[in-house]
Amino acid sequence: MTQNKYDNEDFFEEYIKLREEKDNANVIEEAPALFSLIDNDLTNKTVLDLGCGFGQNTKLLTDRGASRVVGVDVSQKMLDLAFKINNSDKVRYLCLDMNDINKINGEFDLIISSLAVHYVKDFKTLITNIYNLLNEGGEFVFSQEHPITLAPLNGKSWDYNEDGIPTAFNLSNYQEPGERNIFWLTNNVIKYHRTISEIINTLIDCGFTIEKVLEPKPIRDYEDNNRNIECKHKPHFLMIKCKK
Amino acid sequence: MTQNKYDNEDFFEEYIKLREEKDNANVIEEAPALFSLIDNDLTNKTVLDLGCGFGQNTKLLTDRGASRVVGVDVSQKMLDLAFKINNSDKVRYLCLDMNDINKINGEFDLIISSLAVHYVKDFKTLITNIYNLLNEGGEFVFSQEHPITLAPLNGKSWDYNEDGIPTAFNLSNYQEPGERNIFWLTNNVIKYHRTISEIINTLIDCGFTIEKVLEPKPIRDYEDNNRNIECKHKPHFLMIKCKK
Repeated sequence: MTQNKYDNEDFFEEYIKLREEKDNANVIEEAPALFSLIDNDLTNKTVLDLGCGFGQNTKLLTDRGASRVVGVDVSQKMLDLAFKINNSDKVRYLCLDMNDINKINGEFDLIISSLAVHYVKDFKTLITNIYNLLNEGGEFVFSQEHPITLAPLNGKSWDYNEDGIPTAFNLSNYQEPGERNIFWLTNNVIKYHRTISEIINTLIDCGFTIEKVLEPKPIRDYEDNNRNIECKHKPHFLMIKCKK
Repeated sequence: MTQNKYDNEDFFEEYIKLREEKDNANVIEEAPALFSLIDNDLTNKTVLDLGCGFGQNTKLLTDRGASRVVGVDVSQKMLDLAFKINNSDKVRYLCLDMNDINKINGEFDLIISSLAVHYVKDFKTLITNIYNLLNEGGEFVFSQEHPITLAPLNGKSWDYNEDGIPTAFNLSNYQEPGERNIFWLTNNVIKYHRTISEIINTLIDCGFTIEKVLEPKPIRDYEDNNRNIECKHKPHFLMIKCKK
């Protein structure tokens, strides 16, 4: 089973605080790039949102015309919030581990996943299940933490010059895929590092055609200038659009 | 025009010395991975080898059955050596800048390129020309220095622990594509850094379907154990197989 940190009270509170910051990476880097990969016109399309969290993307999908959006998340606490602040008659929320999505009935024209697949240990099974849930010609669009960011076994760290400016990211263990036990909001968050080549080859092996790969830059400057410099040195996110 | 360092006497000598070492990255990492992407049976296939150097790969291609191999390189000095040590009635060598391959007549079933595309400034034009030189269903297989390795503007560098063991690669400027003026065998070798996403998207935009991506590990240990550790921390090479 996938770790369910989001039902942990402390983690949940820290997460909501983070998302409420104006200067957060989701707003400045992740969401704009992810949604640039999604068709502007989703009229009559059915969409599955894997790891939907508090439903922040379901409204954007119905705004683009999607006729039905199913949001799936392992955390009931997140879904309760989603139901409260991002509900609509076109949206249904489902509490389910991403390892169990083969239990979902129905087929979809589009499956999206924002920053969730790196929590799943068995990537091949996940991608196989996603492929099976798509209609012919359907698309899978996802973002994840960039493998460069996720790689170091000892957590991410930077070199700084004497003025405190980040000069280089300390990249290690990129070629050693597997579990990463990291501090993110709280201790012991379990993610899984995979190389870019493993991610892409798994998609292809499962039958997908790669349509676009993004390593996005921020759409505007962060208030903290060191974060802007970090963004020149390495990407935070990897995004892939692929087609069945 | 692409820089032609290989016709420089000092560079050429250093390069030949490097390739004669048993413990070199071409033998332990690059060539085995590149050839794993090429069909074992090339019977009756025509092949174009871009940046063929001293023809080290042309023999491997005719050994697999290729009926005709055209080796292209910008360095006449390299081609003189190729003609001397890797010649056959199935192989023809052509002295040509990789920017000018649109001048080549004929179509090919396979185009390969080993560690050469990072010398070319205009990647989009190069890939367009390669696409146009392929028969329908033809494949392009290439290796290049890995973007992680090529990214730093100040050259590559490592952090070491107190025992002199490499602990992390100092990654910087990954999100700043462009010219890299580096020391490799001699001063002022000009290469071009592109992000992985730019490389893949250019291939797709030009009409290619991505078939496989490799970030290979060494097939055996280096004698210098620090190099083995470096290979765990980051890949040296990026390889892509794609189809017209």
